[in-house]
Amino acid sequence: MIEDKNPQRTSISEMGEFGLIDHLTNTFDIKQKSTVKAIGDDAAVLDFKSKQAVVTTDLLVEGVHFDLGYMPLKHLGYKSIIVNLSDVYAMNAKATQVTVSIALSNRFPLEAVEELYQGIKLACDLYKVDLIGGDTTSSDKGLLISVTAIGEINPNDVVYRSGAQSNDLLVVTGDVGGAYLGLQVLEREKQVFQVNPQNQPDLDQYSYIIERQLKPEARKDIPELLKELNVKPTSMIDVSDGLSSEIIHICKQSKVGCNLYEDKIPLDPQTISTCEEFNISSTTVALSGGEDYELLFTISQEDYPKIKANPNLTIIGHMTQESEGMHLVTRANTKIPLQARGWNSFDKQA
Amino acid sequence: MIEDKNPQRTSISEMGEFGLIDHLTNTFDIKQKSTVKAIGDDAAVLDFKSKQAVVTTDLLVEGVHFDLGYMPLKHLGYKSIIVNLSDVYAMNAKATQVTVSIALSNRFPLEAVEELYQGIKLACDLYKVDLIGGDTTSSDKGLLISVTAIGEINPNDVVYRSGAQSNDLLVVTGDVGGAYLGLQVLEREKQVFQVNPQNQPDLDQYSYIIERQLKPEARKDIPELLKELNVKPTSMIDVSDGLSSEIIHICKQSKVGCNLYEDKIPLDPQTISTCEEFNISSTTVALSGGEDYELLFTISQEDYPKIKANPNLTIIGHMTQESEGMHLVTRANTKIPLQARGWNSFDKQA
Repeated sequence: MIEDKNPQRTSISEMGEFGLIDHLTNTFDIKQKSTVKAIGDDAAVLDFKSKQAVVTTDLLVEGVHFDLGYMPLKHLGYKSIIVNLSDVYAMNAKATQVTVSIALSNRFPLEAVEELYQGIKLACDLYKVDLIGGDTTSSDKGLLISVTAIGEINPNDVVYRSGAQSNDLLVVTGDVGGAYLGLQVLEREKQVFQVNPQNQPDLDQYSYIIERQLKPEARKDIPELLKELNVKPTSMIDVSDGLSSEIIHICKQSKVGCNLYEDKIPLDPQTISTCEEFNISSTTVALSGGEDYELLFTISQEDYPKIKANPNLTIIGHMTQESEGMHLVTRANTKIPLQARGWNSFDKQA
Repeated sequence: MIEDKNPQRTSISEMGEFGLIDHLTNTFDIKQKSTVKAIGDDAAVLDFKSKQAVVTTDLLVEGVHFDLGYMPLKHLGYKSIIVNLSDVYAMNAKATQVTVSIALSNRFPLEAVEELYQGIKLACDLYKVDLIGGDTTSSDKGLLISVTAIGEINPNDVVYRSGAQSNDLLVVTGDVGGAYLGLQVLEREKQVFQVNPQNQPDLDQYSYIIERQLKPEARKDIPELLKELNVKPTSMIDVSDGLSSEIIHICKQSKVGCNLYEDKIPLDPQTISTCEEFNISSTTVALSGGEDYELLFTISQEDYPKIKANPNLTIIGHMTQESEGMHLVTRANTKIPLQARGWNSFDKQA
């Protein structure tokens, strides 16, 4: 646990809530024109002029969404911002502001919270979003982070989940399945560590998939790229719960069916080799793994020439009539129904 | 505890996260023109046209901010919205949207969460705000509610904490101290109940102060009233941590001093009689009690005629030069320095 490694321990209760917020946020600067007033009043003030605002929120809970046994606090802070920005980009919008609220028990000294905020600041700096508010409070147990992200967009550019049409192409960015496998490697190493704390794990061969899990990135570049390519997707969603679950969301909300081609799903070589090592199907991992934070979208067939050469984008299927259903077309060219096996936080307790 | 009273217990894990959110939110309707898209996509979409947006967020944690031993879940849901709307009104803005995220342990059945959302819906309906998003997840222990509230305002109407001038009048709405005393009564009754569960408490004489604690209201009417009266406050804040702490915020951010007159502080008769019963100073309760969710603001002296007859508004002091300091002028006409003794959630753990 982080607090055992750290020789300096300053008690948070000495600072009080206002002192703590001020201490944690005074290095954050304002980068967005739309931020009129950030932290320091009853509320922040934003001005989007002729643009629309998009708003999304996510809650990360210790023991449910993360394990501080292998998740450094700085990475956790970073990731808590990324997962929210990903939802903003999935609207085809530009992320502009975040609020961050944390509840934490007194087992965390000030230095631990500072580390968390270093990660939050790194994400805010790299993604050029402003921290405009939040709340910091104690909890009986553990750490909880609640982030709300805000973005801006020209009203004509908004992309919903519901606009896919039959015959549209289904496209995914980057590669999928890596984050889930990274978690499997970390879980395994944690168990090894519990048996033999002297063991120094060699994780080099898993570096990519571990980074996908511990320090994911959101696809800020994709709304910008699509604009450059003059492509407006007909629907879009981010891949947080696994490809399968996200495709089903698009199909249901757009009232269409889908054929997803198993052999088209983009996988990193490390994902493939680790799947072999763990003896699990890479397709299962891609469909149900989650936490990849790639973007999944549909485009009209006439936009195909604009995207076909782009290494960031892979066409993995096409949409059909709703009555045709949602299917995975396997390498053996058989069709099996797509099922949502996305992650459900309540399953952990069932 | 609520779950013992309820014969029906439906497990939340059976529904899954999407099913749960849909079940809890499908009775909410959209009331605001600025809400383009509410729940159901990666993010909500809002359009404020020529107005600015205000954004505020608060986290309520079981065992820290509320005790389900005497706080019914419906009231808790209601209050979690109110405390956030209060911050929006303190900017002189109109509240328009909220997001609500909850983390809850599996000791809560579906019926308990439904009760919580009944309170949330009641507040959304009465205050005409749209529920536009949120997140629902499990936690190892207890219940946590994170709310972000959004409002809209004409850019010229925004009121910050920082605009008070020397000689401005200091004004508070309603009366103060009641919510804190209501909590004291509830804590006492809880202890009586633990000793003698058969005891039927007669709480009629505390009805007002208990309601102030369990079912507070936010001052939606005040920005509207100020507009009608053609008064723009020079500074404003909501009274959540006690009058003293809020006055100090305004003074520090406006770089002014203040004389607060003890005999002017508005107290309900029930607050006064209960203070006598508990043998505590009503001034201390008003200054340090918190959770009243009234608005505290300053106005230019020339606006005095516009507000003087209004029963909602009480002038409790005036601002001075910063060098003169912040003082309470007692009934005995002695000046004592104002001190912030507002509530600090981290003290509970110290």
